[in-house]
Amino acid sequence: MNKIDVADIADIAKGAAILGAGGGGDPYLGRLLAERAVERIGPVRVVPVSDLPDDALVLPVAMMGAPTVIVEKPPAGDELVRAVAAIEGALGRPVTHIACLEAGGLNSMTPIATAAATGLPLIDGDGMGRAFPELQMVLPTLDGIPCSPMVMVDEKGNTVVLDTVDNTWAERLARGATVEMGCSASIALYPMTGKAARAALVPGTLGLAARLGRLVTECRAEHRDAARAVAEEMGGVVLFTGKVVDVARKTTGGFARGEAVLAGTGADDGAALTLSFQNEHLVAARDGRVVASVPDLICVLDAETGEPVTTEAMGYGYRVTVVGLPCHSRWRTREGLALVGPAYFGYDHPYLPVEHLARQS
Amino acid sequence: MNKIDVADIADIAKGAAILGAGGGGDPYLGRLLAERAVERIGPVRVVPVSDLPDDALVLPVAMMGAPTVIVEKPPAGDELVRAVAAIEGALGRPVTHIACLEAGGLNSMTPIATAAATGLPLIDGDGMGRAFPELQMVLPTLDGIPCSPMVMVDEKGNTVVLDTVDNTWAERLARGATVEMGCSASIALYPMTGKAARAALVPGTLGLAARLGRLVTECRAEHRDAARAVAEEMGGVVLFTGKVVDVARKTTGGFARGEAVLAGTGADDGAALTLSFQNEHLVAARDGRVVASVPDLICVLDAETGEPVTTEAMGYGYRVTVVGLPCHSRWRTREGLALVGPAYFGYDHPYLPVEHLARQS
Repeated sequence: MNKIDVADIADIAKGAAILGAGGGGDPYLGRLLAERAVERIGPVRVVPVSDLPDDALVLPVAMMGAPTVIVEKPPAGDELVRAVAAIEGALGRPVTHIACLEAGGLNSMTPIATAAATGLPLIDGDGMGRAFPELQMVLPTLDGIPCSPMVMVDEKGNTVVLDTVDNTWAERLARGATVEMGCSASIALYPMTGKAARAALVPGTLGLAARLGRLVTECRAEHRDAARAVAEEMGGVVLFTGKVVDVARKTTGGFARGEAVLAGTGADDGAALTLSFQNEHLVAARDGRVVASVPDLICVLDAETGEPVTTEAMGYGYRVTVVGLPCHSRWRTREGLALVGPAYFGYDHPYLPVEHLARQS
Repeated sequence: MNKIDVADIADIAKGAAILGAGGGGDPYLGRLLAERAVERIGPVRVVPVSDLPDDALVLPVAMMGAPTVIVEKPPAGDELVRAVAAIEGALGRPVTHIACLEAGGLNSMTPIATAAATGLPLIDGDGMGRAFPELQMVLPTLDGIPCSPMVMVDEKGNTVVLDTVDNTWAERLARGATVEMGCSASIALYPMTGKAARAALVPGTLGLAARLGRLVTECRAEHRDAARAVAEEMGGVVLFTGKVVDVARKTTGGFARGEAVLAGTGADDGAALTLSFQNEHLVAARDGRVVASVPDLICVLDAETGEPVTTEAMGYGYRVTVVGLPCHSRWRTREGLALVGPAYFGYDHPYLPVEHLARQS
């Protein structure tokens, strides 16, 4: 993938929303934002992570907040362009490349719109290979790359520049500001050199998202099981097929948190799956037994269309298939698990890779 | 007053704490901070507001947060020096004068320590002629002077730079960050030209504070009624003498809010006075009738020593005298009352000057 044109965007949004593991924002909203920008300005040039020159200044951009709110209060348009300019002001040098901080239906799209609007190339990669709810949860943190200077802007015209002692403090201060900004903010953060980005970013995220998006579209056309095809493509497993019978959700502390209960259908008839989420799905438990857990990806797809269903969109009666996909290998290290493993989120189960758990059952 | 030496500080802290109307921070803590700085570095040069050159860059500094917390978590020392440097970085030019944002036992003192540490002269004036709980509540707001760029720093080393669409948004975003910083932050804000400062600042605050502080000390030595002497000096009235019989206080939303009830003694025997506060005292009601209200100053003094008692220090059994002092005349205008009048704080009584209310009773 060396450029993104209007025709590519729907597939990327769909595939990135699968990788978003229930979070990363609404793919329909994201698609509209990116298509509007690319239609107006033209295709976005895409650069592989491995092609980055050492002295490039790479800037990931994203939306931060509760997806339940962002979907009702999308960015006005120029927020991220203002954020890029504010980072350039803080660093005193120009940004050379835009990047995705995470995969997600919205957070893969706002970087496309930002690249279009600024005329900068976009990196084919992201900071985690999925979406996570908190700012410090990116592979660059494992490499000791600071989040600061970080810029937050809102649709009203307010700008906040953070320079924090560590990335967890950036999350804490930025979350507070996000709540005041109305649970939704446009952010630019983790400015890094090309050399650092080559080591820290997950390569190929946009290309992978496009492939997954096309796969789902093809499966639907051919009446094939999209969830199974996605699981096979990614080396993951189909965890459950069922109907959403309960969703308890609240927007609190700047996150959309909650739990969904699925009643099994077909081969899973009589069983129940519980999904716990904080923007993204964190844990899937079948009849009380953990079958997938952070940092692995728990992805919910519409059972009929294969379309990804985000945590904020899940509702009673949805018929869905849940798949578990292996996370990036660095998340499975001791350092990775300390940052994003079950214990961080308050769970007491040990982490086991989703493909191992599947073999145990 | 053309300089502040160690010997001046105790009086200024005491007098400024009276002007702080229950807020503005603890005078004992403030005194220690300022004395330590001036002992170590030397006297601070003081410049009258009227002597400011047009092109001076005046920077008010303060502590922000809940006084209940600040008193337990005072600044480590270099926070405001870092804040001054961050403002200089944001504006790209050097600050020439430090100023007090408000009068108060702590917030008159941190500017002295900052002036000492930076070697800059201190302005004899402040932004309101008292203390108020929210950032936008300063006379510069009435002149259209923006709070931005505003810098917040904490004792851990985090820095936040705010650039907001108006001063109320600065308050909102800064309050959220203050809460995350542990309900206490060191701030630099309202950078303004000397010309703007001459029009907007209340002149002579430090000199007035020193006079009031000395007056209280003299009254104590001469067994005179300090509260009555302060009221006479300031054209105010003695509202009530009594004993604190109840204090309901909670630290919420980054403020110390609450209500205290006083049972009258002496001439006020049988009557009750209720004080409502949000960091500062907002309303004093005698047996349900408002006898003083924002923006006028409601000041509580120890009945025996005349020492100012801050809202966070008030406790059961304290014997106190409450005085009402007229606020700066600009607060009594339509624009002033819109910013800091009773309605803003959620009260439905009309504002009447404290000296008029006294004549009605």
